[in-house]
Amino acid sequence: MPLKYPNGKKYNPKRTLSKPNSVNKKDERYSNRGMTLEEDINETNEYYRAHGIAVIHKKPVPLQIVNVHYPKRSAAVVTEAYFKKPSTTDYNGVYKGKYIDFEAKETKNKTSFPLKNFHDHQITHMRQVTEQGGLAFALLRFTVTDEVYFLHAEALFAFLEDNADKRKSIPKKDIEERGILIPLGFHPRIDYLKILDKIITDI
Amino acid sequence: MPLKYPNGKKYNPKRTLSKPNSVNKKDERYSNRGMTLEEDINETNEYYRAHGIAVIHKKPVPLQIVNVHYPKRSAAVVTEAYFKKPSTTDYNGVYKGKYIDFEAKETKNKTSFPLKNFHDHQITHMRQVTEQGGLAFALLRFTVTDEVYFLHAEALFAFLEDNADKRKSIPKKDIEERGILIPLGFHPRIDYLKILDKIITDI
Repeated sequence: MPLKYPNGKKYNPKRTLSKPNSVNKKDERYSNRGMTLEEDINETNEYYRAHGIAVIHKKPVPLQIVNVHYPKRSAAVVTEAYFKKPSTTDYNGVYKGKYIDFEAKETKNKTSFPLKNFHDHQITHMRQVTEQGGLAFALLRFTVTDEVYFLHAEALFAFLEDNADKRKSIPKKDIEERGILIPLGFHPRIDYLKILDKIITDI
Repeated sequence: MPLKYPNGKKYNPKRTLSKPNSVNKKDERYSNRGMTLEEDINETNEYYRAHGIAVIHKKPVPLQIVNVHYPKRSAAVVTEAYFKKPSTTDYNGVYKGKYIDFEAKETKNKTSFPLKNFHDHQITHMRQVTEQGGLAFALLRFTVTDEVYFLHAEALFAFLEDNADKRKSIPKKDIEERGILIPLGFHPRIDYLKILDKIITDI
């Protein structure tokens, strides 16, 4: 079975290089421009950095490099590498001195969020971060309705414990109850730090 | 000119897969086993994680992926990718709730540390982290004498400002004065968090 890119999709490097091809027939509001969640978060993080609000980066895709070619007079080329499962979440950084750590996932489902989107080691990592006093959470997007929820790691853990072996997804109503809907904006697009300000009293 | 791996060396994937080939003719104490600084730090970080002391990871090598091949019934293969300059330091994570961020560099020089080892954007990143209240620093190894120094980002910035355009390296005596020599151990090998405990009073 082909090992696909960690989010379960094939890797398409052109996706971020070309302008997004809108295949969305719905109302084209600013909050729904055919951007991926990753693109929206990257732009949000750039906004945070440019305005001195926070320093948060996406980690590079982890690859197992097997072969590198060193041609004369030109750049080294990786000619064989394989995608590895990341051992951590994708995003981390610093906000007001605090360690911030999160994973961003999206689904086309309308009524629930598939748990297979979270790898075990990512959950383990979020637990370790929480034990160390870091702020761990997930950003979950329902692409069809273009809703992005902030789900605190404690809420995610509680859900996983309450429902161990029973469900393979989190019903959307539970995310609505335990998470916080992030109002989408233009600049920044997904202002998740505003949510942190509200829920973390000691920040 | 070939773009080499960010540390200026060619990438050697076998380095971490095979047992280290000791080419060191000197005294083979535990603190000098032909390990790279990266290997020593990775083992130190594993120790910290395993003992619930801190959660600190090395970031994956950033690559610009150009081509991916998806063979039937086997794993996706990256067939063309190029090394990119990292936009951040290599290591970050959380210790006692605080954001930790550092770069590790080694040199074969005996009397000074070449500044070309630090990219401008890494210095910029360390400044941003410091402004956000994160703890940024560098671990510098003199490989010949197997000495590892902890250099606080503020000390690095001060040196860069005092010596702008004058020097291309930091004299070792300045690192001895402004940095802290880390005693090397077996488990963990480079206990840099012990240094943080000493110098950061509010941690």
